Amino acid sequence: MPKIIVEIMPKQDLLDPQGKAVANALHRSGHNEITNVRIGKRIELHFDRAITQGDLDAAKEIASSFLSNDVIEDVVAITKED
Amino acid sequence: MPKIIVEIMPKQDLLDPQGKAVANALHRSGHNEITNVRIGKRIELHFDRAITQGDLDAAKEIASSFLSNDVIEDVVAITKED
Repeated sequence: MPKIIVEIMPKQDLLDPQGKAVANALHRSGHNEITNVRIGKRIELHFDRAITQGDLDAAKEIASSFLSNDVIEDVVAITKED
Repeated sequence: MPKIIVEIMPKQDLLDPQGKAVANALHRSGHNEITNVRIGKRIELHFDRAITQGDLDAAKEIASSFLSNDVIEDVVAITKED
């Protein structure tokens, strides 16, 4: 099924308590090679037809205005998958 | 900074109420070309050194045993970014 994948992460200078908790738990279980963990969102938009350039442009608009909060989040990738 | 990116999605035959709510909102604002929305997680594991094959194997293990709940979620991708 054709889909557009939107990836959203918390801004780099923002605290990410959920990621911090996961990093601490990994350290406790011996994974000290992992210095930090950040947790964001991966959103799939499904289509029942082939995806056009217009759809990608619309997805970019939707991602920044609707799916993410640009005060605290960055849209890091918008990719197409057929 | 080198990082391993783990992507986790709710299993396909599972309801995703958050995704459903976003899909409904998109339909109300006229985006009827989007048939469905699913919302998952994008987790970044940060390293302060180059990532080895061993790190990728460890990340695979961490992703399935620790970061995801395999009753309701699938690990859809594990990728390296330098």
